[in-house]
Amino acid sequence: MYIENIHGPADVKKLDAAARKELAQEMRDALLKRASIHGGHFGPVFGMVEAIIALHTVFDSPKDKIVFDVSHQSYAHKMLTGRKDAYLYEEHYNDVSGYTNPDESEHDFFNIGHTSTSVSLASGLARARDLAGGKENIIAVIGDGSMSGGEALEGLDFVGEQGTNLIIVFNDNDMSIAEVHGGMYQGFRKLRETEGKAEDNLFKAMGLDYRFVKDSNDAEALIQAFSEVKDIDHPVVVHIVTQKGKGYAPAEQNKEDWHWHLPFDIETGEAKMDFTDPYAEMTATHLMEKMKEDPTLAVITSATPPVLGFTKERRETVGKQFIDVGIAEEHAVALASGMAKNGARPVYGVFSTFLQRAYDQISQDVCINNNPVVFVVGWASMNGMNDVTHLGIFDIPMLSNIPNLVYLSPTSSEEYLAMLDWAIEQREHPVAIRMPNPAVGSSSRKVRKSYAELNRYEVTHQGAKVAILGLGNFYGLAEEAAAELKEKTGIDATLVNPIFITGQDEELLNELKREHSVVVTLEDGVLDGGFGEKIARFYGTSDMRVLNFGLKKDFYDRYDPAVLMEANHLTAKQIAEDVCKVLG
Amino acid sequence: MYIENIHGPADVKKLDAAARKELAQEMRDALLKRASIHGGHFGPVFGMVEAIIALHTVFDSPKDKIVFDVSHQSYAHKMLTGRKDAYLYEEHYNDVSGYTNPDESEHDFFNIGHTSTSVSLASGLARARDLAGGKENIIAVIGDGSMSGGEALEGLDFVGEQGTNLIIVFNDNDMSIAEVHGGMYQGFRKLRETEGKAEDNLFKAMGLDYRFVKDSNDAEALIQAFSEVKDIDHPVVVHIVTQKGKGYAPAEQNKEDWHWHLPFDIETGEAKMDFTDPYAEMTATHLMEKMKEDPTLAVITSATPPVLGFTKERRETVGKQFIDVGIAEEHAVALASGMAKNGARPVYGVFSTFLQRAYDQISQDVCINNNPVVFVVGWASMNGMNDVTHLGIFDIPMLSNIPNLVYLSPTSSEEYLAMLDWAIEQREHPVAIRMPNPAVGSSSRKVRKSYAELNRYEVTHQGAKVAILGLGNFYGLAEEAAAELKEKTGIDATLVNPIFITGQDEELLNELKREHSVVVTLEDGVLDGGFGEKIARFYGTSDMRVLNFGLKKDFYDRYDPAVLMEANHLTAKQIAEDVCKVLG
Repeated sequence: MYIENIHGPADVKKLDAAARKELAQEMRDALLKRASIHGGHFGPVFGMVEAIIALHTVFDSPKDKIVFDVSHQSYAHKMLTGRKDAYLYEEHYNDVSGYTNPDESEHDFFNIGHTSTSVSLASGLARARDLAGGKENIIAVIGDGSMSGGEALEGLDFVGEQGTNLIIVFNDNDMSIAEVHGGMYQGFRKLRETEGKAEDNLFKAMGLDYRFVKDSNDAEALIQAFSEVKDIDHPVVVHIVTQKGKGYAPAEQNKEDWHWHLPFDIETGEAKMDFTDPYAEMTATHLMEKMKEDPTLAVITSATPPVLGFTKERRETVGKQFIDVGIAEEHAVALASGMAKNGARPVYGVFSTFLQRAYDQISQDVCINNNPVVFVVGWASMNGMNDVTHLGIFDIPMLSNIPNLVYLSPTSSEEYLAMLDWAIEQREHPVAIRMPNPAVGSSSRKVRKSYAELNRYEVTHQGAKVAILGLGNFYGLAEEAAAELKEKTGIDATLVNPIFITGQDEELLNELKREHSVVVTLEDGVLDGGFGEKIARFYGTSDMRVLNFGLKKDFYDRYDPAVLMEANHLTAKQIAEDVCKVLG
Repeated sequence: MYIENIHGPADVKKLDAAARKELAQEMRDALLKRASIHGGHFGPVFGMVEAIIALHTVFDSPKDKIVFDVSHQSYAHKMLTGRKDAYLYEEHYNDVSGYTNPDESEHDFFNIGHTSTSVSLASGLARARDLAGGKENIIAVIGDGSMSGGEALEGLDFVGEQGTNLIIVFNDNDMSIAEVHGGMYQGFRKLRETEGKAEDNLFKAMGLDYRFVKDSNDAEALIQAFSEVKDIDHPVVVHIVTQKGKGYAPAEQNKEDWHWHLPFDIETGEAKMDFTDPYAEMTATHLMEKMKEDPTLAVITSATPPVLGFTKERRETVGKQFIDVGIAEEHAVALASGMAKNGARPVYGVFSTFLQRAYDQISQDVCINNNPVVFVVGWASMNGMNDVTHLGIFDIPMLSNIPNLVYLSPTSSEEYLAMLDWAIEQREHPVAIRMPNPAVGSSSRKVRKSYAELNRYEVTHQGAKVAILGLGNFYGLAEEAAAELKEKTGIDATLVNPIFITGQDEELLNELKREHSVVVTLEDGVLDGGFGEKIARFYGTSDMRVLNFGLKKDFYDRYDPAVLMEANHLTAKQIAEDVCKVLG
């Protein structure tokens, strides 16, 4: 095995063509086995194995600096830069993260999980090099899917005016997570078909030099191409064409399903476990029915159709009522604002972490204009993705402090659907709904038909002394904490479902003063800038004691949710104990 | 006068070529006079007068819908859509806002002040039209400066795949606020030089149809061009070439100074008043000195060099240590992260309102990676720009809830410079500094040399009973409120300069409990998600009474700061009174 002897790029450079070919096969085998057991991002790296071998053969990492976009392709890079064991041996699978990570290796420069950043970040490395008088090569790797993101396009434009070394490896596999969307992809197709000779080349239009590599799953052709641009004195794009999922038939055939995959059986490609987000399914089913009745109801995604359960089959059924804008959250939000302004009913489904890309558009394009866009915010919970780059714990501070926006936090599937119906029907407000995490179930509690009376909380159980406000996903935890408190002290706590993240029910909060001395808030996200602090402010000048429960502001990485809950006093028992301390 | 009889687009359509020429001159005269008295955005609209006349001659607004980018060009549009009096008569100058505004007219579709949005917003109007089976024309107007913004580029890519009517009028005047920056501008130049025939056309690369109009300050040529694309069945870009500031010699000659201008003498072009932001000047002078000593210290702007006082002359002096990325905030932040990672010392100067564009990049590209980027946040105050689209009152909730970021709030010019020095020297944290508003002056109080000990507040006066935490710009107000309180009650309040917006000095806050029963916080921004609420949370379970002063969460528009202060109980007298009420 060649891979066993690769401890760093120096070992890669010793190989000959035959050995490189063998190495590529060994790497694919290891990646396939690991993915079948561990799950994870799959397709992107399979097409890039030869290119990564070629990069480490030609360039001198870490002096020469390679920046990966989204990092999915970085698995092969990690295997060649001292981290092979994490791909070869099951007991080491968790030694590495799913993204480049400077804490793991000097060959990684950024911890990056959102797309479209590599050109800009690499241009920064290059500019610092120029200011310091350095000479190293800076290489940005970017996939075609990432190219639709504004940050990447801004970066290309900037780089087009720089006069110094920067090598952009454009990995074109004609796929995003799902199929690619946007006019530029017609141009990329023409470039592929003409071996780079087609007119109206986007990169040249951005002022960049451009090379096309014909056979990009051949390490030797890539080595040749990279050698030609090494130490180049100006920015250049090297367009390589790879096949997503290359080397594994099921992934070659169904690229969307194999962008990321659960653990699976290698022989059949069948997943070893089953996971369907019940809320995504519920949303798709529900919206499909409504879309039949209302041709102006449309669902928007920015390259993540699964967030609202829109499988390929469903997308085909609803036709132009489903819009995938590509990886372009800014555009998605502005598009939705325009649609709402002209009478349509747009529902933009987006993961909490990616919505961050559109903070300004939410504020300016939508909320200043008060256009009735509906946002469905997925994976907005500490119980979801737990990579530091994909946390769903910052959307409350991000969204809830923007004027005019109504941010709703459902506590059950019934309430979620009622909110969705109301949000779509009404024409008065931009409305965001925090999609519950899968652990939030059905409830027999009666739900409202309308949320038009803003900021009216719901008292679900009238007690005394202590009132617990359980926001959204944490309403169940509020119930548990109340039970714990009752058992411990006999106190029958009042339970409140706040419903509205974006405003305070002042009447109710004032009323609580009469029979309560402690108010507890629970929220599934960081405390800073969130819901509980507003309640603390409200009671600041009163006798009321306020306890805010939620997460300490921090970037958490690959955590165990149960451990994090406990560390932040978020178990029912801890909450009850903390309340007892305040009661004295 | 033709303009006197223009009450709406129908009146424009009645004119013949000679009358249109006359009308254009009358409009320029009125715009010139108004700008000389009122000040405001100048250059952009002067180049667009004929194009706007042509648009309203050919299209049928408001059925056909015109969306302006940044809206500066919309002044001429407003004159032709029932709002001429606001441009002809001094007593009506304040009847209109500086941006398109649906509250003013059915001919305006969005209230927009940030750039690069028109293509996306218009594509939303178009998609809603298509879903409803409509037939109207949708027109997006966008300048070349706005084209470097990611939202515009994402929008172009999206539109390139749409198959229905959308007309993009690309107004190319070869200028942003300052000169344009980026590789695409080489391409635009070639298109101008070849009358649209050059290869590697960015628009075509995005999948778009394209037309070039030769003489774009001739209304008749424009009418011809617009008539040809009216009712077109697919998206098309109409490239027009205008001259910024056309018709007023000083503005034609010095385009940067005349993008926006203070009231001036028409004969000489001399400003009638003088305004230099003392903090911008101070920053430029200070940084120029440091840049001489350290070649890796670099200042970044996203098309607004004035924010840190970098005049054309200064930019030329520092050469490649000044980087204007164009209107591309996302790229600016990622670039800075890359530079910091590779050893340089980047200082990104940006107005509070525009930094919103880069929320995700601040969080992901910079803060997760903990790269020592320095942000200087300008116009971050309620005493600054007061258009609803340019408010500087949201940066505290936006920035202060992002982990790893250190956000500092200076209370004097000395403290500001000390913070700037420290932020540049240190390599541990991303640091943002809230640049004081011009009313914040010099102080003889001793300032720290280092802020490395995070979240340590400063007690500037030790008193008892009441402690007032005056953040940044509002430290002076805290002093006044303390004086007022003393006069009223004899209470000698403790005064605190919190310095750090992003963290709490728990030791000090606990210590305050001993001799104080009331803590007051003052912050220059919205209360929601801000500084004061965190103090309220801290004291939630204690006897301490907390009063948070700041602005109610809202989008304020063209307000009088004094009136807004009073409405939010932000005068020294009101604060003292409110404290007295709590003291009982």
